[in-house]
Amino acid sequence: MSKLKVGIVGGSGYAGGEFLRLALNHPNLEITQVTSERNAGDPITFVHPNLRGRTNLKFRRMADLEPVDVLVLALPHGNAAKRFSQFAGLADTIIDLSADFRIKDLDLYKKYYNEDHPAPELVDQWVYGNPELHREELKGAKRIACAGCFATSAILALYPLLKLGVPQPKDIIVTGLVGSSAAGASASAASHHPERDNSYRVYAATGHRHYAELHQELPGNFPIHLTAIAGPHVRGILTTAQLWIPDGYSERDVWGAFREVYGSEPFIRIVKVRKGIHRYPDPKLVSGTNYCDIGFEVDQESGRVVVMSAIDNLVKGTAGHAIQSLNIAQGWEETLGLEFAGLHP
Amino acid sequence: MSKLKVGIVGGSGYAGGEFLRLALNHPNLEITQVTSERNAGDPITFVHPNLRGRTNLKFRRMADLEPVDVLVLALPHGNAAKRFSQFAGLADTIIDLSADFRIKDLDLYKKYYNEDHPAPELVDQWVYGNPELHREELKGAKRIACAGCFATSAILALYPLLKLGVPQPKDIIVTGLVGSSAAGASASAASHHPERDNSYRVYAATGHRHYAELHQELPGNFPIHLTAIAGPHVRGILTTAQLWIPDGYSERDVWGAFREVYGSEPFIRIVKVRKGIHRYPDPKLVSGTNYCDIGFEVDQESGRVVVMSAIDNLVKGTAGHAIQSLNIAQGWEETLGLEFAGLHP
Amino acid sequence: MSKLKVGIVGGSGYAGGEFLRLALNHPNLEITQVTSERNAGDPITFVHPNLRGRTNLKFRRMADLEPVDVLVLALPHGNAAKRFSQFAGLADTIIDLSADFRIKDLDLYKKYYNEDHPAPELVDQWVYGNPELHREELKGAKRIACAGCFATSAILALYPLLKLGVPQPKDIIVTGLVGSSAAGASASAASHHPERDNSYRVYAATGHRHYAELHQELPGNFPIHLTAIAGPHVRGILTTAQLWIPDGYSERDVWGAFREVYGSEPFIRIVKVRKGIHRYPDPKLVSGTNYCDIGFEVDQESGRVVVMSAIDNLVKGTAGHAIQSLNIAQGWEETLGLEFAGLHP
Amino acid sequence: MSKLKVGIVGGSGYAGGEFLRLALNHPNLEITQVTSERNAGDPITFVHPNLRGRTNLKFRRMADLEPVDVLVLALPHGNAAKRFSQFAGLADTIIDLSADFRIKDLDLYKKYYNEDHPAPELVDQWVYGNPELHREELKGAKRIACAGCFATSAILALYPLLKLGVPQPKDIIVTGLVGSSAAGASASAASHHPERDNSYRVYAATGHRHYAELHQELPGNFPIHLTAIAGPHVRGILTTAQLWIPDGYSERDVWGAFREVYGSEPFIRIVKVRKGIHRYPDPKLVSGTNYCDIGFEVDQESGRVVVMSAIDNLVKGTAGHAIQSLNIAQGWEETLGLEFAGLHP
Repeated sequence: MSKLKVGIVGGSGYAGGEFLRLALNHPNLEITQVTSERNAGDPITFVHPNLRGRTNLKFRRMADLEPVDVLVLALPHGNAAKRFSQFAGLADTIIDLSADFRIKDLDLYKKYYNEDHPAPELVDQWVYGNPELHREELKGAKRIACAGCFATSAILALYPLLKLGVPQPKDIIVTGLVGSSAAGASASAASHHPERDNSYRVYAATGHRHYAELHQELPGNFPIHLTAIAGPHVRGILTTAQLWIPDGYSERDVWGAFREVYGSEPFIRIVKVRKGIHRYPDPKLVSGTNYCDIGFEVDQESGRVVVMSAIDNLVKGTAGHAIQSLNIAQGWEETLGLEFAGLHP
Repeated sequence: MSKLKVGIVGGSGYAGGEFLRLALNHPNLEITQVTSERNAGDPITFVHPNLRGRTNLKFRRMADLEPVDVLVLALPHGNAAKRFSQFAGLADTIIDLSADFRIKDLDLYKKYYNEDHPAPELVDQWVYGNPELHREELKGAKRIACAGCFATSAILALYPLLKLGVPQPKDIIVTGLVGSSAAGASASAASHHPERDNSYRVYAATGHRHYAELHQELPGNFPIHLTAIAGPHVRGILTTAQLWIPDGYSERDVWGAFREVYGSEPFIRIVKVRKGIHRYPDPKLVSGTNYCDIGFEVDQESGRVVVMSAIDNLVKGTAGHAIQSLNIAQGWEETLGLEFAGLHP
Repeated sequence: MSKLKVGIVGGSGYAGGEFLRLALNHPNLEITQVTSERNAGDPITFVHPNLRGRTNLKFRRMADLEPVDVLVLALPHGNAAKRFSQFAGLADTIIDLSADFRIKDLDLYKKYYNEDHPAPELVDQWVYGNPELHREELKGAKRIACAGCFATSAILALYPLLKLGVPQPKDIIVTGLVGSSAAGASASAASHHPERDNSYRVYAATGHRHYAELHQELPGNFPIHLTAIAGPHVRGILTTAQLWIPDGYSERDVWGAFREVYGSEPFIRIVKVRKGIHRYPDPKLVSGTNYCDIGFEVDQESGRVVVMSAIDNLVKGTAGHAIQSLNIAQGWEETLGLEFAGLHP
Repeated sequence: MSKLKVGIVGGSGYAGGEFLRLALNHPNLEITQVTSERNAGDPITFVHPNLRGRTNLKFRRMADLEPVDVLVLALPHGNAAKRFSQFAGLADTIIDLSADFRIKDLDLYKKYYNEDHPAPELVDQWVYGNPELHREELKGAKRIACAGCFATSAILALYPLLKLGVPQPKDIIVTGLVGSSAAGASASAASHHPERDNSYRVYAATGHRHYAELHQELPGNFPIHLTAIAGPHVRGILTTAQLWIPDGYSERDVWGAFREVYGSEPFIRIVKVRKGIHRYPDPKLVSGTNYCDIGFEVDQESGRVVVMSAIDNLVKGTAGHAIQSLNIAQGWEETLGLEFAGLHP
């Protein structure tokens, strides 16, 4: 089979760079174009030095894009939708890594993104790029809107119990610890190393935008509340979700629910070990991988369940599930290009 | 005034070492004895190298303790109570940094510490060492049982609204991010640097022992649930507490509640800034200090309040509020020896 | 081709675990046995949680080892040599990751390892496992003694100029920054997270054992001096080597020397970029990979050259060049199983 | 005694902020003005949140400066000299934290700062602000040019042996590990947290500007060479200096040399412990303090001495020795305001 030609728009950021890293290792993909207005003319290894020896490509300008088989948009929020006409004709398959086409409800979009959707007529063409929830729709999909990173960690933690209608109708609290790479490659006061190192900052105590994705994707209309904390690490999100099970619903039942819903998922690992230091999910252990590790603990006295999930925000949270979604869309083996096992220690 | 002579039992650990650091800088205290069975005969700077040039004291054995004015017990859990007869006659004032004498309800103690209390007849002699809640009782106190570190961060975050009876009777979720120094100075698999660096591990999803302190200290019998996460930092706890306010209770009212209860507290700072990167409490900024920084954010739509608190677990969480409690007990200026402002960056 | 069966002795440490990670991803290798006396009976993922979903193997005792094609010894120093009789018959090919069989000169061994060599009659059977210097000898090799991690970073930095006889006969200073994983998986005071985090400790100002390897491997009898510093990171070594070139020898000549010696090496990248923040080697960028990145800068005024090299101590410094050496020994493609490109950021 | 009124120009940077922190704790100083063009009108705690509760001052513009007793210039390089006429009349005592007035040799200045000195006629008025080398000149000084941070760590490591003429006339190699705070408070690609965390970058393999200070301050015209590495920590410099002693000069002699020269220095601690993990200087242990810890190790076989020094670049490397110099200039106790002992762990 000849490889699909891939172009990346906005390839100097972390999301684009991560797609590039994964695609260079994918047997069915060939990266042929990567754009960066700021770095046009430079080798892409100037910005992504981990790829030295792996590619000789140089950044080009967006204006110099030529048709490809797959176009990946890795642009700041709003750009993909506002400028979609210049991308639409360039490729049969388009993957957007931004939030632009994730939300189907235009009012919900407006509430969380503070503006009318720039291209409302296009929204319905896009499949929400979460393979665990939308595998069937992804088959053959030509427009894939990749899920948000914090949203993914929260949705995957909550989905099984909510889908099965298990929780009591009480408030569900979701807290996420998010690494600095999630804020992107542009230097800023918040990500200045002397300030960020060793620091924990609640950056969205309430009102995190990714709530819109949870609202859309999770069944059951449970009251869900998000709090997001910026931690002193680079990659990874650890999410804890607190919810309540009915009397008589045991830890074994919780286990069964996760097994029922995720039993054959290639990238979800149920982590619950009785001893040692690795008893629960830890974002360190999935760094660089497409895994979402999920664990849980039940407080029988109060009926509280704490579900924990860990992902790499740039892989399972962005570029990895983009690749996974593309594999599904193309009818390929779902794990192609996503084989990296992660490091320890 | 002549200085009070102070002895520290178990001075090679982090809690004892921190008391030592603060006491060496206290105008009314003079450290005369520090014990460590393992390091007896070594200079204390061998274990606490930050104190080089500040003291020539050497560790001695517990058996060699002589009477002092103030005895500080910094022993592993259970030791202070089980061996109290050997300490009781040595000093007029005794401060225990362990959990042994914090809990007044013996059943509660048993539930969370998995054994009958070793010295139930002594429990009532001790004042719970939280200056903000027990200032009056601390005046003249001779037995001070210092509050736990995670408990302190949670209690100080929740106390004002609970004392004023504000929250709705819904579940309150408290999540703490705890640094590695809280697990003590003994090397262990969980604190092995290659494992702990860059890692987030939920170590008490449910059932954290410090719940016993919250149950005892917080008014109103609200259902409170704790989750504790070990983070990749050394010092500090960031705690978020999620609770619900009634309709009509505004962010301004929350502010008023905190001001009313903590308005004149020397070590509590209400942190709520509208712009910039330091909008809320951050444990990095209180490292080495006795401050508890507290902030909050209200989601008007759901009535949810997120209260955040940040402390240094070894200072405001242990040795610092021990000194603060002692200052109160002795009738001294409450801030003596606790003047360090913290570093930035 | 059927896969070679591989056994790992001492598989609960970091070196053994890293070999396991790489071998599980190697098309020609099949791990069939992994020993750990302490964890016998436990799944290997209990110790190496990154491999969850990749293997169901359990640790067994060394006494239960059965014959394999390739046996990898990942034991503490001294054990491979002292107990070699129990391993010799188990496999046609044996790879030792310890220092036991690296040094051919028994006096040199004694000087740096403080004892007579436990098995002097075996030393000559072993090839020093550094592919860049010993590729020809490695072809068909049955006994491979993998090079030390700091030694590898220093040897690869110095080899080209020394081989070509370039430097002046002045003292060469080599300084290495070494991550905490190099000290192994056993918890210790030196690697206790509260102590190691944010800390820099010179642990071998003079007299580092790996000098023996430099002495043996580097041509020209130059006076070389090592200093090793423990840094607050987990993986990776950054080495700087300071040496002097003759008058008239330019930076272009240095470049030419490295190209001449390493021009076709699959795992050495010459890194020297004129602008940006990634101008020189950085261990962060080779983490998890088998690359050794090498750069240099010349001070024309003094004739000083600073050569920098960066490796992952567990990959190019241990398990990776073990795999690379094995690939060469078996006549396979040299890069098999070592394709991971590294992460950014 | 009434306190001296102090103004800080450029108080939103890290150097100015650190001077502010120390001065607020100094019994003889009162901060009355702090300028920041960008933050004028904001409370200084907006930028330096560690000072919450310690000061209510707001930033003002430079144009609004009023006369004070002591003016501290904390401006980017070149500004103090170019704009000195606007500061000269504002205060009797002026302390410059930049490099502008450190170098007396105008050719040397030009070589390392790439321009003619902007105010050559003023250079001689300034005393180089290194208390250990210039204590006598500092007494009564009105113009103090504080020494550079890396320069200070290197000079203090080398001075005793060089002053006593001990080393052989061979090349001296100095390697410094420098934290991210040394690059200042402005966000940049090099200090972007995702890039800097966990990373080691040689940023001045050769040609570091601080060489000019070593050349000026160190006796004996020894050939000295600097290499500077940016490490993944925030505060602190660990410097290793490699030099050669003559035959017969023992480790005891080295000890004697350091004791002879630094015996009564209040902020230099000779650190050389035979056992344990804190055998040598570690920048972690001096963080926030004005100490310079110095240790050494001798390789008797080669005559090599490795001298190690550790400082906090913002304290002993900048604001701390500014305060120490001012204390000397004013005839005060040299340690005033600099009593903080440092934290462990």
